[in-house]
Amino acid sequence: MMEVVFLGTSSAVPSKYRNHASIAIKGFGEIFLFDCGEGTQRQMAIAKVSPMKVKRIFISHLHGDHILGIPGLIQSMGFRNRKKPLTIYGPPGIKEVKEAMMKLGEFSIDFDINVKEIKNEGIVFENEKYKIECIKTKHTTENYSYSIEEKKRPRFLREKAIKLGVKPGPAFSKLHRGIPVKVGDRIVKPEEVLGKPRKGIKVVYSGDTVPHEKMIEFAKDADLLIHDSTFEAGKENKALETGHSTAKDAAKIAKEANVKYLVLTHLSTRYREAKKIENDAKKIFKKSIVAEDLMSITIVRKEIREIKRRILEINEETIPRSELKFND
Amino acid sequence: MMEVVFLGTSSAVPSKYRNHASIAIKGFGEIFLFDCGEGTQRQMAIAKVSPMKVKRIFISHLHGDHILGIPGLIQSMGFRNRKKPLTIYGPPGIKEVKEAMMKLGEFSIDFDINVKEIKNEGIVFENEKYKIECIKTKHTTENYSYSIEEKKRPRFLREKAIKLGVKPGPAFSKLHRGIPVKVGDRIVKPEEVLGKPRKGIKVVYSGDTVPHEKMIEFAKDADLLIHDSTFEAGKENKALETGHSTAKDAAKIAKEANVKYLVLTHLSTRYREAKKIENDAKKIFKKSIVAEDLMSITIVRKEIREIKRRILEINEETIPRSELKFND
Repeated sequence: MMEVVFLGTSSAVPSKYRNHASIAIKGFGEIFLFDCGEGTQRQMAIAKVSPMKVKRIFISHLHGDHILGIPGLIQSMGFRNRKKPLTIYGPPGIKEVKEAMMKLGEFSIDFDINVKEIKNEGIVFENEKYKIECIKTKHTTENYSYSIEEKKRPRFLREKAIKLGVKPGPAFSKLHRGIPVKVGDRIVKPEEVLGKPRKGIKVVYSGDTVPHEKMIEFAKDADLLIHDSTFEAGKENKALETGHSTAKDAAKIAKEANVKYLVLTHLSTRYREAKKIENDAKKIFKKSIVAEDLMSITIVRKEIREIKRRILEINEETIPRSELKFND
Repeated sequence: MMEVVFLGTSSAVPSKYRNHASIAIKGFGEIFLFDCGEGTQRQMAIAKVSPMKVKRIFISHLHGDHILGIPGLIQSMGFRNRKKPLTIYGPPGIKEVKEAMMKLGEFSIDFDINVKEIKNEGIVFENEKYKIECIKTKHTTENYSYSIEEKKRPRFLREKAIKLGVKPGPAFSKLHRGIPVKVGDRIVKPEEVLGKPRKGIKVVYSGDTVPHEKMIEFAKDADLLIHDSTFEAGKENKALETGHSTAKDAAKIAKEANVKYLVLTHLSTRYREAKKIENDAKKIFKKSIVAEDLMSITIVRKEIREIKRRILEINEETIPRSELKFND
């Protein structure tokens, strides 16, 4: 299971309804942040995403609207007495940015911050449960797109193992974990008792990019492709000029990559009514969803189980002098 | 006239309803920012306070929750093609902080940023319309409290000037501006034709501080005292330990300083229901108002004309899989 929480979905500058870019993914007992624009920690507070469970932050590129939430997040982690290390992955230059972030006023932290500059495309981090990969795509500066993919253990063929004389118990577990086991005089190899490895849930995040050929392969069969969609269909030239994609660009990639669902994000503040963006994409790729701030998508067994929306409303009231009472 | 907009009213960490510290004051054809915590630019967008009209930012102290909104604000000003210079005033160390802020990722700005480190108490900036003064108060680090005060020209005693033989016209204007005028053989001095200078609107902002004796004189007769009120009454020791004030502390100062209205701000996130803070203060000083994010107070002729509240509501809705439709 993965829950993808859209903490911020604006481009460049924030608006009333959209904060700077950041996506939290809950899964595998931790929380991953992809990009961390200004105000991310408050969006986390609203969406109930705990900063203390974030072990790894992945930065697509070094524009302010994708990184300026890091210093506040770090300082608040310190304020809350964090001890566990934090790792930040990003393009070359991120180490220098982190050094500057440590000089922003007076604060103290009691945990390690490791910064890893990405040198190559491919695996950024993996363990037995998941892997995170990246490719370099094309924005006005170096941009990395990331994928996070669940690793599924192959199915254990119990009946076959018993037939081969393996006794249920620790030997089963060993074989399932890929370790050969001796049965009498014979060695039973794991591949004899393991089915095909199943594919796990895969989510891809583009960061800021023009539509890119490489993305089709990278996002192949993903359950969720979260793609730059700064502009509406028809503004492809404007998008190219500014290093972005349109809803149409994103939908074409989603279709060619055969993903299950497309989420359109990083909307220009000009779009007050985002349905236009969604409808542009749907003409090409039906399962398109426009991102909203604080929306979360829960994926279970490779299907979206639910979408949760948190709708921000700002109501105004004016209390004129005649009504100002200071006696109660 | 001055309009005071409370952009952020939390302490240390933000909550669902309260952002980091920042206050905008509209007046004299410009917008002043007092402190600029993370997320301030978005709060400005919501409250319709234009960053382009901000010429001067005053920082109380160098804790992250009071300064981390500056880099994003600067980058967005650059993005919007600002040309006009910006001046930032703050405690010693702010120059270094600003230097670090210029290293936070890739961006370009085409305007000057002047940083002025405050060395002494007294006047920070003044022109013919207003003056801004400061005193040093006591927090866990060096903190400055600021006042902004409208300068009112003294009343011109027209009848008296005519009696002295001054002719209406340029001579009147000269005398009103403080320049002596020759009438026949005699020099008419401004003080002969000017009434007592009237006091203009005065607003005082404490920043983060323990209750401080000096504040009573500094806030004397202010129209609005905006004071640290991190904790409720009864938690005076806790407040002292952490360099803050309680609602009771703030109210006592407001009373002794004979201010017109007290606004309590910088609330600990533990206070979900802020009325407690307001009621604590009202027991001592009736005209107490607890600050809320996005609240604005308009002061005209030394009276509050109106209070505008912008109430943030977050409504949740869940769309389960069975209802997910991708055909429309």
